[in-house]
Amino acid sequence: MNNDFDLSQVKSPADIRQLDESQLKQLAAAMRRPLLDKLSAHGGHVGPNLGMMEAIIALHYVFDTPEDKIVFDVSHQTYPHKMLTGRMEAFTDPAHYDDVTGYTSPRESEYDLFSLGHTSSAVALASGLAKARDLRGGKENVVAVIGDGSLSGGVAFEGLDYGATLGTNFIVVVNDNDMSIAENHGGIYSDLRLLRNTNGTADNNLFRAMGYAYRYVHYGNDIPSLIRAFREVKGIGYPVVVHINTMKGMGLPVAEAHKEQFHFSAPFDLKTGALLSNTPAGVDDRDYSDIFADTMTELMHRYPEAVAITAGTPGVIGFGPERRRAAGKQFIDVGIAEQQAVAMASGLAKGCARPVVGLASTFLQRAYDQFSQDIALNRQPATFVVFYGSMFGLNDETHLGFFDLGLLSNIPDLQVLVPTCREEFERMMTWSVEQRSIPVVIRVPGGNVLSDPSVTLLDDYTKPANEVVEIAAKEGIEARSDVKVALIGVGTFYHIMRDAANLLAADGLSMTLINPRTATRLDEDVIKNLRDYDIVITAEDGIVDGGYGQKVASALGTSSAKVVNLGLPREFKNRYRASELQQQCGLTPSQIAATVLNLAAK
Amino acid sequence: MNNDFDLSQVKSPADIRQLDESQLKQLAAAMRRPLLDKLSAHGGHVGPNLGMMEAIIALHYVFDTPEDKIVFDVSHQTYPHKMLTGRMEAFTDPAHYDDVTGYTSPRESEYDLFSLGHTSSAVALASGLAKARDLRGGKENVVAVIGDGSLSGGVAFEGLDYGATLGTNFIVVVNDNDMSIAENHGGIYSDLRLLRNTNGTADNNLFRAMGYAYRYVHYGNDIPSLIRAFREVKGIGYPVVVHINTMKGMGLPVAEAHKEQFHFSAPFDLKTGALLSNTPAGVDDRDYSDIFADTMTELMHRYPEAVAITAGTPGVIGFGPERRRAAGKQFIDVGIAEQQAVAMASGLAKGCARPVVGLASTFLQRAYDQFSQDIALNRQPATFVVFYGSMFGLNDETHLGFFDLGLLSNIPDLQVLVPTCREEFERMMTWSVEQRSIPVVIRVPGGNVLSDPSVTLLDDYTKPANEVVEIAAKEGIEARSDVKVALIGVGTFYHIMRDAANLLAADGLSMTLINPRTATRLDEDVIKNLRDYDIVITAEDGIVDGGYGQKVASALGTSSAKVVNLGLPREFKNRYRASELQQQCGLTPSQIAATVLNLAAK
Repeated sequence: MNNDFDLSQVKSPADIRQLDESQLKQLAAAMRRPLLDKLSAHGGHVGPNLGMMEAIIALHYVFDTPEDKIVFDVSHQTYPHKMLTGRMEAFTDPAHYDDVTGYTSPRESEYDLFSLGHTSSAVALASGLAKARDLRGGKENVVAVIGDGSLSGGVAFEGLDYGATLGTNFIVVVNDNDMSIAENHGGIYSDLRLLRNTNGTADNNLFRAMGYAYRYVHYGNDIPSLIRAFREVKGIGYPVVVHINTMKGMGLPVAEAHKEQFHFSAPFDLKTGALLSNTPAGVDDRDYSDIFADTMTELMHRYPEAVAITAGTPGVIGFGPERRRAAGKQFIDVGIAEQQAVAMASGLAKGCARPVVGLASTFLQRAYDQFSQDIALNRQPATFVVFYGSMFGLNDETHLGFFDLGLLSNIPDLQVLVPTCREEFERMMTWSVEQRSIPVVIRVPGGNVLSDPSVTLLDDYTKPANEVVEIAAKEGIEARSDVKVALIGVGTFYHIMRDAANLLAADGLSMTLINPRTATRLDEDVIKNLRDYDIVITAEDGIVDGGYGQKVASALGTSSAKVVNLGLPREFKNRYRASELQQQCGLTPSQIAATVLNLAAK
Repeated sequence: MNNDFDLSQVKSPADIRQLDESQLKQLAAAMRRPLLDKLSAHGGHVGPNLGMMEAIIALHYVFDTPEDKIVFDVSHQTYPHKMLTGRMEAFTDPAHYDDVTGYTSPRESEYDLFSLGHTSSAVALASGLAKARDLRGGKENVVAVIGDGSLSGGVAFEGLDYGATLGTNFIVVVNDNDMSIAENHGGIYSDLRLLRNTNGTADNNLFRAMGYAYRYVHYGNDIPSLIRAFREVKGIGYPVVVHINTMKGMGLPVAEAHKEQFHFSAPFDLKTGALLSNTPAGVDDRDYSDIFADTMTELMHRYPEAVAITAGTPGVIGFGPERRRAAGKQFIDVGIAEQQAVAMASGLAKGCARPVVGLASTFLQRAYDQFSQDIALNRQPATFVVFYGSMFGLNDETHLGFFDLGLLSNIPDLQVLVPTCREEFERMMTWSVEQRSIPVVIRVPGGNVLSDPSVTLLDDYTKPANEVVEIAAKEGIEARSDVKVALIGVGTFYHIMRDAANLLAADGLSMTLINPRTATRLDEDVIKNLRDYDIVITAEDGIVDGGYGQKVASALGTSSAKVVNLGLPREFKNRYRASELQQQCGLTPSQIAATVLNLAAK
């Protein structure tokens, strides 16, 4: 019977509302099969989507979407929602796998209300929808679906706090799968556990305490139970929380057993769970997460007061379960709570510990106020290591890594270092943990790990001190002495600039190649020298606006040097190809060389 | 007896620990008198400090500060703490009133652990101190004092959530005065009320639900009750919340009766509470808060779906109690919860309402992620009005208003408008509320309200379109035609640039004066013309780094124009004088004119 379910007939939620309740279990089974095929062949968020299958079917069965509004938090759990809302083919037909993104997107469907990838904000967004409804006298249901660890984010709490006061229809579905990305952390999760263990009857009830009515669904993967609960709250005239207990990874034994590993996975074997990896045997496949973890582990041995901190993404910093156990008290996962991670680091530093916070570029902006106030203004010697801060990193519009440089480097008294290779990254990290005077951000280079023993390492990175390398015209080529050229390559772009310099050397040009090492302040001596240059090109791994290049252009504004700032335009890009974007922005070595030759010809 | 208490003998908390418990009430009375004198003569945070007098005395009496660590949230309630920790004279001697700031400051005292003015982060900071203590095997108590409305901020919740898991000594004192700055808002406050009404015995207990032990002190201004509670938790081996019920404004009848008005006050008459205002009769003393409120009220009449939103500071947007009542459902105070205010605005706009959020510059950075993700990425047509975004605004190091321009203007798809005068501000605000296509930030000009009917107003501010005014050399002066000069004045600095232009006109120079209207994107036509200029000067009301001027310098990098970017250095300033800072930065009209003449002479 399962095999007969024709998914191609499900064009919209209206189609499933024609089914008998008893058929929905078959629908779930029929949907899970192609979903598993896609996840294993294509990669993606495995556990969250398998766990939410039944709840999403029940939501669309009970509520009259799209009139009723459902806002999904951590929208990486919306694959089943996409299947039910006109995008089935993107899960059943490999040729269409890439038609949809991994998050909700209003461009894809009217059922997707927001582009939402940073988690925790669904309740706040839904409270606005509810208030707008009340202002115009509407009657539709407004539902926020939150969970999978995002409840710990401050804005989730702000939303819950305000939402409790709405006094009208407002339904918050808390998807409790007993997991964040790794384990859950924080006091609220002890309450969720208590509620699970008491079938929702415990007196200590966070949601009731905040002013919500409350329903508990123990079998959160049982469609009839879910339908009953959702029907009870449909049309309700006040704020209510529906707490559903779901099984992350449901229906895939390896994912049920290894929840952290299968939160997100690259393509894998459906039976064994083994990754279909491409790394040839014998190649060093350590990425910067591994390098961070190795360096940090060594530093933690040397300094018992050194601590590694993550905000719910231990994988980003290379701390799998084994390393976490080994680190013991020296490892902290605060859950999805970046503000806590950054402010806590300030307290740790003040208390003479050596905190090192590892953050993905896209998420650090959630703690801007803490970087500015708690860290920089208070000059606490904490270290922040930024991963995927690059155009060669994450490429979903909600997870871009090229806005952080201008963001952090314009905060006073915060040293933002931009290593160009593995050796420089390791050196800067060790220096930062050992020094006790200033807060430091280290932006991990983008792309593959690059080793370059020729980069000069320093004992002290407190002051801006650029590395300046003279590159002579290639021997045997007629050298041009009429034009002085400097190429400044920030972080990842240092080596791209060097490649450009080598191309130009073959054209007879000699050049000054500069690794600024820091993106915060200019090296005044270097800038003074550059005033005599004819051409100065900067390239950085981020948007041009607010970045390093514009500081150089400003400093050279009254000189006769022609300055060109290369980098990305200030735009949200979505699922771009890095190599294409690089080309579009004139950021390949040959394009940079052409820019120089073009200016030199004028 | 009270009169005999010699406050000059209180040099440190050790001195009060010598007193009998019974003498502490006299100490409080003796301290309250000069404090009232200072508050009434000097202005400051009135209600919070009067309410916390007894609790602060009891804290320093019981805990062994500075070995025991107390982190004060909303540190504007620490005047009594400053009196007890070596800074008594700053409250008893008018000649020393300005020796101390209004917030905790490690530069002032080792008893002040952090510069903390943005509220809500004390629990997170203290969790770091506690963890650092545990790593080194220390035994001191760590106490976070939070309250006065700041409990609603997301980072407070993140801190509480993590702190609950510490498993060691961690004491959170919740100062519950039944008030934020205005009324309290949000579901948590209904729980605090329930706990007050049940003498702390209610089953619905937010803190217990999060995993804390819990003590309640009903008479939070009764020193013996406080001492008893603090002694009970001193040395405790697990996280505990001590919930104290205090009276905001305690000891000053007008402040007890008018809690919102006396949260913060300019100098006032101690008996009547009337402000000792300096405004001469007959002068229009409306400030931009009043102008905002008037414009907004009119727009709310015209559009029933228009809503004014504040995050706990209705006074900033001119919405006193009367206006709030009149606005009814069209006014929202989410409490100190900027992330909620911004994300909710996105939901409101999506729901076809017309949200207008008013924020102080210094606090908007707490919602950077929501500006970027929920507003800009989702292109929701919400309006944000930024107050005190200026060097002529707030001047405490924790509350500076000159970092927001670069912060917001480098977010894609967010239109940041920079009106130069009252008329332009009103026009931009009305336009923004009426349009339905893009998110808009409007930065209120700094300093006194300036009226300038000569500024050209537009029907549409979607695209960057600069106002360009030609200023001819003064008649009768020999005109110089050898040098082409453009002056670009952003927002507040447009009129300062015009004054500079008038000085230069008297020197025979003709100039192009530019009001960019927007700080986000350059007007490409204008920039193209500027390539033929000899001198281009930009001035903006914020730090130069990441700002508008650097965009101009970058765009003109390959032209022969000499570009100078004027603005503030990237530094945290503390209690500066705006006129002095302006002078230091070369930002007065005569200094700007001199800069031009100097470049023209080269």
